[in-house]
Formats: sequence, C-alpha cells, structure tokens
Amino acid sequence: MTDGSGDRAGLFGTGLGSSSGRPEDVQLLDTTLRDGEQAPGVSLTPEEKARIARALDDARIDVIEAGSAVTGPGERETISRVTDLDVDATVTSFARGVQNDIDLAMDCGVDGVNLVVPASDQHIEDKVGTTHAENVDRTVELVEYAKDHGLWVEVIGEDGSRADLDYLEELMRAVLEAGADRVCYADTVGHATPDRTIEAVSRLAELGPTSTHTHDDLGLAVTNVMASLAAGADLVHGTINGIGERAGNVALEEVAIALDHGYGIETMDLTKVYDLAQLIASKTGIPLAPNKAVVGENAFTHESGIHTDGTLKDESMYEPYPPEKVGRERRLALGKHAGRAGVEATLNEHGIDVDEEDLRAIVARVKEIGERGKRVTDADLLTITEDVQDRERERRVELLDLTAVSGSSVPTASIRLEVDGEVREEAATGTGPVDAAMKAAEAALSHTADAQLESYHVDAITGGHDAVVTVEVEMSRGDDHVTVSASEADITRASIEAMVDAMDRLVANEDDTVIADD
Amino acid sequence: MTDGSGDRAGLFGTGLGSSSGRPEDVQLLDTTLRDGEQAPGVSLTPEEKARIARALDDARIDVIEAGSAVTGPGERETISRVTDLDVDATVTSFARGVQNDIDLAMDCGVDGVNLVVPASDQHIEDKVGTTHAENVDRTVELVEYAKDHGLWVEVIGEDGSRADLDYLEELMRAVLEAGADRVCYADTVGHATPDRTIEAVSRLAELGPTSTHTHDDLGLAVTNVMASLAAGADLVHGTINGIGERAGNVALEEVAIALDHGYGIETMDLTKVYDLAQLIASKTGIPLAPNKAVVGENAFTHESGIHTDGTLKDESMYEPYPPEKVGRERRLALGKHAGRAGVEATLNEHGIDVDEEDLRAIVARVKEIGERGKRVTDADLLTITEDVQDRERERRVELLDLTAVSGSSVPTASIRLEVDGEVREEAATGTGPVDAAMKAAEAALSHTADAQLESYHVDAITGGHDAVVTVEVEMSRGDDHVTVSASEADITRASIEAMVDAMDRLVANEDDTVIADD
Repeated sequence: MTDGSGDRAGLFGTGLGSSSGRPEDVQLLDTTLRDGEQAPGVSLTPEEKARIARALDDARIDVIEAGSAVTGPGERETISRVTDLDVDATVTSFARGVQNDIDLAMDCGVDGVNLVVPASDQHIEDKVGTTHAENVDRTVELVEYAKDHGLWVEVIGEDGSRADLDYLEELMRAVLEAGADRVCYADTVGHATPDRTIEAVSRLAELGPTSTHTHDDLGLAVTNVMASLAAGADLVHGTINGIGERAGNVALEEVAIALDHGYGIETMDLTKVYDLAQLIASKTGIPLAPNKAVVGENAFTHESGIHTDGTLKDESMYEPYPPEKVGRERRLALGKHAGRAGVEATLNEHGIDVDEEDLRAIVARVKEIGERGKRVTDADLLTITEDVQDRERERRVELLDLTAVSGSSVPTASIRLEVDGEVREEAATGTGPVDAAMKAAEAALSHTADAQLESYHVDAITGGHDAVVTVEVEMSRGDDHVTVSASEADITRASIEAMVDAMDRLVANEDDTVIADD
Repeated sequence: MTDGSGDRAGLFGTGLGSSSGRPEDVQLLDTTLRDGEQAPGVSLTPEEKARIARALDDARIDVIEAGSAVTGPGERETISRVTDLDVDATVTSFARGVQNDIDLAMDCGVDGVNLVVPASDQHIEDKVGTTHAENVDRTVELVEYAKDHGLWVEVIGEDGSRADLDYLEELMRAVLEAGADRVCYADTVGHATPDRTIEAVSRLAELGPTSTHTHDDLGLAVTNVMASLAAGADLVHGTINGIGERAGNVALEEVAIALDHGYGIETMDLTKVYDLAQLIASKTGIPLAPNKAVVGENAFTHESGIHTDGTLKDESMYEPYPPEKVGRERRLALGKHAGRAGVEATLNEHGIDVDEEDLRAIVARVKEIGERGKRVTDADLLTITEDVQDRERERRVELLDLTAVSGSSVPTASIRLEVDGEVREEAATGTGPVDAAMKAAEAALSHTADAQLESYHVDAITGGHDAVVTVEVEMSRGDDHVTVSASEADITRASIEAMVDAMDRLVANEDDTVIADD
C-alpha cells in the first residue's frame, strides 16, 4: 500500500497504522446529506438523497447521516427514502437535545441518531440558555430514551473544541455510562489547532469509542482528523468534496486516500470516489475547484515540460499514486510550459508522427498560444502541425452563415454549412438561441449521425455581460475523440464554431462517402 | 490573538508559538507566479505578473518566486518586470541544476534563486541520469557560483519526501557548507505523511535554515506544513488559493490564518488576503470553490436556521474568527434551512417590519423555494412578503418585448419596457446578444442613470446546450442594493429578466418623479 520508507512508523509517532499499536480500523461517517446539505444554496430532493445514499453505500461508507428529521415533512420523506433502501451502512438522523427530534427520527426508520448537545460555555449558556448540570442530566435522559428504543446513539458535544475540557469529559463520561455507543469531539466552528485536538480527543478516547468532526475554516480540517486519529479517535465525520457550513467539513476522500496511501489503512472503496464526487457536485450545484485534491479536474493533469517528460518516462515520477486508484485517468495538457515529450505523445494519439525539427517548431507555437493565456486544444495542435508541416488541408465542413433569434419569441436559429462543397441549410427551434443553433447544426450534419457531442462546457461568466465566453466541446466519432474550444463574446457563435470545427476534424481522415449526401 | 484555551501549548507539543520554545518567526515564500502558473491552462502576461507581485508585496509576503527564467524570453520579460518593481520582498527565480539557468535568472535582476536539484533515487537516476556523488558535487559548484555572484540561494531537493534521508542529509549538509542560505524539504509529488515530514525536516533543520514545500495530492498540504514547522522549518512555500501542479501547492492564506489564529504567529497581512485571492482567481482563470477555506464565497455565509440564529445573537457563536480579519464581510443566505431570525434580519435590511404570524408564513415559503434547490434572492423574499402581507404592489418597470439577433451579423437587440405606464423602446448592438440586450435595456432605463449594475454572474454551464442557465445580478442605486436571479434556457432572456426585476425593485420605494420622462 505504501511506498514511502518510514511512513509506516505510525501517525505522529503514535503507532496508528503500524503493525503494533492502535487499531488499524478507522470508520467513516458521511454527513453530505446533513451538514453538506446545510451549505448555502443547497437543497436535495428525496430522489437525489436516495441516489447519493446508494452511491455512498456502494463506496462502503460505514455510517450515513441522512438528514435532520426535525427540519420538516419534506426532510422526513427524504430520510425515509434513504432508510427504505436497506443499505449496508448504518443510517442516522441528526437530532437536537430534545425528545421530539428523536421521535421524529424514529418515525423515519433510522438505525441511530447523532444527538447534538451544547458543550462549550457559550453554546450552553448563551445559545441554549441552560446550565452545565442541567445539560448533563437532560442528555443522559435522552440517551437512555434513545437506547430504550433500540437506537445506535452517538453524542456530539457541539462546539467541543471551545469547551472547558473538564466539563466535556464529565458530560461524555455520563452519556457513555448511560449507554451511548460513542461520543464525538466536534470542532463545530473550525477553530481548533491540532494541539488542542490531540488534547481533547485523548481525554475522550480514554472514556470510550470517540468520533471526530472537523471543519475547514482554518484550513486544518484534515490536519485535525489526523491529530484526532493519533489521539485515539476511530470514526471520522466528513462530507464528499468537503462541502458543508461555511468553509465546509473535512473531505472524506482526502482522509481516505491519506490513510490508505500513507498508513495502509483501508476505509471506503476509493475507486468509486471520483464518480461519487461528480454526482455530489452536480446534485448540490457546488463546483469542485480544478485543483481540489483527489477529485479536482487537474489532480492528475500534467502540463509543464519537466513534469510531462518525467511522467512519460515513468508514471510515478510526478504522481504519489496512480489515478486509477481513485477511479480516474491521467491527462496531459498542452500550454505555455509544454515540452517536446508531451507534444509528441499527444500527436501520436492522433496518429501523427513528426520529425525532430518539426516537433521543435510545433512546441514553440504551442508555447506561444499558451503564453497568451489560452488552453491549447487538440484542434489547435493539429492546425499548428499542418501549418508547420506545410500540409494543405481543405476544410470539409465550413460555417457559412448563422442567425439566431431569441427573446420574447420561440428561440429560432438557421445555419448554412458547406460540407464537401455542398451547401446545406437548416433551421431549428430550441430552449434558447444556443440550443436552437446547435440543433440546426446537428440537422445540417445529420449524415454524420455517428458523431456524438460528448461534452459541452462554458466557464462561469463573472466579467460582465460583454465578457468573452469560452465554449469547450468534446466530440467523438467511433474511437476518435477531439476537443475544441472557441472564444467569442457571443455564446451562440462560440458554441457553433466549436462544434463545426470539431466535426471538421472528425471527418478529416475519413473517406469521402461517409458524409456524402445519400 | 488566540481564544482557545490550551492552544498556546505549542504546535504538536513542540513549543512553536508558545512563549518559550522555537522561534515565532515564520516566513512565507509565494510561488503563485512559478509553481502556481504551472497549473494546467494558466499563463500570466508580464503586466499580470507585475500586478500580482505588487499585491503580494503589499500583503507582506517575504519571498516572491517570480518564475523560471529558462522557460523562454517571454518569461524573462515577466521576471524582469517584477524585479523592476523594487518591492520589499526578496524576488527569486526557479533554476534547475545547470549554470545556464542561474545566468538567465541573473539577467532578469533577481535577488536570489531557488535551485532545484534531484534528491530521490528515482529523480537522480531515472530522470536526470546522474549519480548520487556527481549530483552533490555539481550542486556544490552551482551554489558557489551563485553565491560568488551575490545571490540569495535556497537549494530545493526535488522529490525529497521520497529520497533516502541519509543521502538528503548528505546533499544538504554539503550545500550549506558551500554557502547556501537555506535548504528546502520538497514533497514535490504530494506523497508524504506528517510522520515522514517530521522525520525528514527534523534532520535538515539540524543542519541549517530549512524551508518546506508541500503539495496537496493526499489532502495533506497544510498538515505537512504544520508538521514541518513543528520539526523546525521556518519558511513555507505555497501559493495563494493553493493553485499549482496537479492538486496544487499548499494555500498560503490557510497557513497564515492557522498560525495567526491558532498560535499567535503573524506572517502576511491577512486583511489583504481576500482581494489577493480574487485577483489571482481572475487572472489565472482558476475558480475558487465556494467552500474554499478563508477566501471561498461561502466561508462566512450562514444559511441554516440554527447557525443564523446563533450568529445574530453572538457573532462568534458559529465563527472561529471574524470575517473582517481576512478582509471580508459576513453574509446571511436564505434557503431550505432558513429560520425566523435570519429572515427577519434580512427583511429589516430592506426596511420591512413584519409581525410574528406573517414571519412564520414567510419563513415557510422561503423554505419551500429552498427545498426546490433554488437560492432565495432579495427579490424572491420581497415578493413572498408582499404576497403574505397581501400588499398589492404594482410593477413600475415591466418587460413587454425582447428580441435579440446574433450569429454572422452584428449582434443586435431591441427591447420594449413599460416604465410607470409609459412604453419605451430601444435598440442597441453589442459584442454578443446578451451585451446588445443589456445595452438596449440600459438605454430604455437611462432616466435612472444613477442605478449601477454591480455584478453580473452566470454559473458554469456543464449540463449541455439546452441546460437552464442561472443569471445573478446585483444592482445598486444610492445606498440600496438588490440581488435578483433569473433562470432560463435562454441566457439573453434570463439576463434581461434579472436586470429589469432588479430595476423594478430599486425604484419601488422612490417617488414618481425619479424615473419620469424629462
């Protein structure tokens, strides 16, 4: 599992993950459907929650916190949908320290509750308005009530990282004696240092099974998980993609790969993690940064010459673990820092061989485009290569005219293309001008029905309504794939240009009959 | 500085940041312009690099690695632009272990070089094709050469985390004896555990001043910085926003806030960090995830009822540190998890008082919209409130007709609005259909010239060309601000609807004359 000598010495010297020492069994609790869903602007339908829960279970997450039953009838329907799935994972609901919350959770058929009670002075006195002693008594009663009803019970001490640790210990000792299955150290506001975490968790782990719940406000969410495990915690709360309140919870996929690669401790099925991340990003609408660890678009992309060259010599040269480990593929990108090895490898993928001299010239041109801040797509590279090799290539698909009308009327577009010298004209309506134009283009190119639009992407527009918009399309035809981008202030025009260029590339090496008229 | 009792005990018990113990002085080296720029698809112009360098210096970054001089003439121009700025920070260039790289760096007028030489067996033998002994000899010669030319020299042992530590120590002892100012432990491929990091850095820190360079492939970039500091490192390499090769470098803003809040160690000027993050995101084109620590859009946004209510009672209830500390403001969002306190506070901001019963009804409606997965904007809230209070409000600005034409011709749009019963019709051209339509709308509303479009935002489109596009606009007029969003498959129509609704809201409380015809 690990290839770094010395890594198996054990986490922070505690022996975690080493052959002797603390147990190697770390479990994961996923709160994407509860704390994750509390991220601003996120709301998941019952169907979406059920689909995510199923995917979490497939990825062997141990505990799924499906929501907070008290939120409302809609939320209870969603939790019930999840419990109805009959997954292997333990399914729980969040519950505040009131009996009604536990009752509502039970109505949804959950296996257990994450009972959240205040732990810090501020939360006990100012937020809930109770006393330290009353808080212990009431929590003990609720634990007994939940246990009497057959629930798995974890007690979370809210704002535990800012709590008086003597009190936190007193509270948690009482709830464990009352029958709670485990207690949870919660850095609710993302305030703790790893030192504080080690101190607090060590004390709780002496009492009984201890979980850890960290937030990323200081960028320390993962650090504090590692510190918690070193101190004896054995269950980690987090979310996929690290979504959640404010700066989010710890990203479970990061904890999982760090434990697996660094300490040989297996938790979830990592090969499922990329699809899971995509599912959650699309359903929650919270995008992943390209540089997000493990699941970001660029996490296994190499552009710079040194890195690309090294990677082509030996895949592990600039990668700690192979992308396949987390269900992904390696990608070479071309740009300002491109080197010869990377450009040559990409040309080979398109079946093109070039000599040394041409390669040097092509690399120079690729870097030139890159220096203007542009991504270099397949189409750019092929155009450069033709130019350098002085190969005349006649376009087989050309855009002659495009008109798109939208507003109060039905969005309508017409397109005129020249395909192998023959003019084709089509019109279509659509949901908007881009859709209408793309449909008209598809109709005009219908003789190449085996071509597929694999992806259509537009970067977020923040510069204003006159900003240049970059449209990237990927099209395929049989085994051939091509990426093309077009940048225009007119999103309709950019979309069509990219699609037409992609089609032109895909038919370039085919014999004439393929797109000839019937 | 810190408010968590026990936090000042020192990092991982080492005493870092405690009154006695290791030095409290930690410096930051920013490699946004070098390692950050090596992120796929990123290329910065000389002007952009100079502007970023100026901003980094204003934020009191200690060392700015401005690029890699050997990359090409364009890159050398950029580095020279940065050295010409005469900033307080030390300005350096990356240099491989060849004299030419150092010469080219000196041509750009840098203060120093980050000399990168292989450290792991794999990089020494397979990548560079040299021997361990030769590598030491050559590096020593280069250090002497650079020092003879008056440069500040840091030697980075590439892939140091996978190196044989005895060899790494031998190499670094030799370069320090040859006069290098400091050595750097580099986890080039993001492979290391904190245990490995502590082991390696401890050995280097015994020899002389030691830097640490971490990557986030395992999600451990920050953890390994903390481990490095605990082990005696005193300079941290990283980038703003954590951009860089693959999953990126450690995010300096996270290191800076963790050290400041958790250990009372000051590094950069944190109040500048948000603007810096925005500048770099916009110039590199690498967006920030909403849940990015410190600088993400949602890092100080509260939506859920419990959190909003708590925050309104006491701002520190759900925040580890105030947003102002990092140059930001707190935001309350409304959605599925909204509670009464948050809704009431938002209504008060718009000058609206509601009674208990109405508030309850408004909250229910807000949650209903939220449950459909929609963000609840100011306009949504105001519409709901009018409805609940049974207040008739006549629209003062209404969209009657919109036509936008684009494609091969000049993008043109016409708009017909009714403003206080008077029909206004305008046409305009623009860079695209959205721009033309927005300009036509601005012309039709020119009597309200004091209204400003503060921001225009469209989320990235990934669902396909028929996907519904959400346009969010913020408009202001005097002290009034209003956010409106509109979702349509037609981006032109969505843009105009949002703008017209925003204008209608802004003039709602004004007297008639303001937008009357002259």
